[in-house]
Amino acid sequence: MNTGRHEFELIAWIRQQTRAHERIPLGIGDDTAALAFPNPANCLVTVDMLMEGVHFTMPPATPRQIGHKALAVNLSDIAAMAGRPLAAVISLALPRGIPAKFAEELYAGIGELADQFGVAIAGGDTNSWQGPLVISITALGETTDRGAVTRSGARPGDAIFVTGELGGSLAGKHLDFTPRINEALKLHETVDLHAMLDVSDGLAADLQHIVEESGVGVILDESAIPISPAAQTAAGQDDRSAWEHALSDGEDFELLFTVSEDDAVRLLANSPLEIPLSRIGTVVDGNEMQLRTAAGEVIPLPVSGWKHLL
Amino acid sequence: MNTGRHEFELIAWIRQQTRAHERIPLGIGDDTAALAFPNPANCLVTVDMLMEGVHFTMPPATPRQIGHKALAVNLSDIAAMAGRPLAAVISLALPRGIPAKFAEELYAGIGELADQFGVAIAGGDTNSWQGPLVISITALGETTDRGAVTRSGARPGDAIFVTGELGGSLAGKHLDFTPRINEALKLHETVDLHAMLDVSDGLAADLQHIVEESGVGVILDESAIPISPAAQTAAGQDDRSAWEHALSDGEDFELLFTVSEDDAVRLLANSPLEIPLSRIGTVVDGNEMQLRTAAGEVIPLPVSGWKHLL
Repeated sequence: MNTGRHEFELIAWIRQQTRAHERIPLGIGDDTAALAFPNPANCLVTVDMLMEGVHFTMPPATPRQIGHKALAVNLSDIAAMAGRPLAAVISLALPRGIPAKFAEELYAGIGELADQFGVAIAGGDTNSWQGPLVISITALGETTDRGAVTRSGARPGDAIFVTGELGGSLAGKHLDFTPRINEALKLHETVDLHAMLDVSDGLAADLQHIVEESGVGVILDESAIPISPAAQTAAGQDDRSAWEHALSDGEDFELLFTVSEDDAVRLLANSPLEIPLSRIGTVVDGNEMQLRTAAGEVIPLPVSGWKHLL
Repeated sequence: MNTGRHEFELIAWIRQQTRAHERIPLGIGDDTAALAFPNPANCLVTVDMLMEGVHFTMPPATPRQIGHKALAVNLSDIAAMAGRPLAAVISLALPRGIPAKFAEELYAGIGELADQFGVAIAGGDTNSWQGPLVISITALGETTDRGAVTRSGARPGDAIFVTGELGGSLAGKHLDFTPRINEALKLHETVDLHAMLDVSDGLAADLQHIVEESGVGVILDESAIPISPAAQTAAGQDDRSAWEHALSDGEDFELLFTVSEDDAVRLLANSPLEIPLSRIGTVVDGNEMQLRTAAGEVIPLPVSGWKHLL
């Protein structure tokens, strides 16, 4: 509905780009797509919507980066469950009059990442309007034989880990990050992941999700938080330290997870990952978020001070 | 990400509204939802995005009607495949500063229809911004044992049917229509549906989809098109006849399908539906769309004349 000639052409173009896929008995061109799921009991589904002026601005973001990000944030959610992505559908509100090349670049950004992780683009809804660009992607996936890793399985005594380096993502990483699908699958094979999520709201805010869902407390080690070069740069541009950026900046899209002390020792001795892996704290009884300072003192994690910045 | 206090409260409210469901081992509150599909080989997926000022205006549309429509257009697509809806996820861009009551009403409109058809709301992404309201719903479903009905199965000699009455939907029906899920399932049980879709772009435009996907021609019977009272009213307000409205107005969300001549006779003798069912034409060889006039003359269907109105 509300489909003008430009959209008809674009839909035809998308259809042409969408290759046949063994998991898609029926792809673009009918009222719905039909998917063949390998395992019926383990269908993961997640949706994320990106809006111009909120999740990106143009420039600096290119249409290819926006397409990449729109799928990547969804794949990051599937990674957070230690799942495998299978398929995605895309809905799009394009600013009227935008060049056809723009939409093609957007889809190319989606397509490259989809190919990299074997994700079948199963369908979509392409519209145009007078408003800003909006793109919503729903990704479908499956769990491995080891099941999904939720936010609710952290236990007192667990070690808390994070992949990569944190902070300053808005300077660029948020547009071109690689979702940690492969890392999550490797970790899931190697150790017993008790709780996991992807860092999207910021380390402190996301850790709070684990605290609430698992009914536990946490103590973060101040000196163990891996601070990214981008966080250092950001600190030079405002009144917050690089550490504060690492703790509270959003959109890192790294994995935050907890494992037993035994598994922690194994991971530190022999990490299965090619990216940094840092032990940043400990799960404890209670429901508090605390910080072990570099001097060894345990104080309340001053989250509320940063909450307004999220 | 980009979640302020208002959105946190809303998400908590939504979570409260979302009851446990046997098909959702993991619902709202983790990085993805997990679904248990009864039949993995037959997962239907469809997405539709509604934008303020394009698919609705407020007023006259109420938030409850917008929620209803956002899910109903997706269920209509699943009906078009003769499938059963199972679950849906929702992404939302709310105008900043809109009252919490508005979002609650929107979700109530979704929830009522979801309950009516046993659809589990599995998750979502709620955002706010300076732009107009955008809502995108992805619906998941399954086919019955008889499989999915596509647009590509029409055969020369088939009779063409449509449910309900056509035209003038924008006067109100587009906001409160009932998706033809139950009717499609009953038809699928009763006859061998060769091709089917839901009338969303308008009868002529949607029939064109069957023509193209099935590689056939069609002859519509001018006097057999079921004209709605709303099309009559619309005809009194512009320079198009009620018949033209019935042929070209969008958003009817009725079922358009083809069956063999034998099945057509059975349907006309003993319809399984409680809503009108009209035989409106015949599938023929070729690739043309033609019209049998009330006088019995066969002429090209003058689709192009209305195309700019779609």
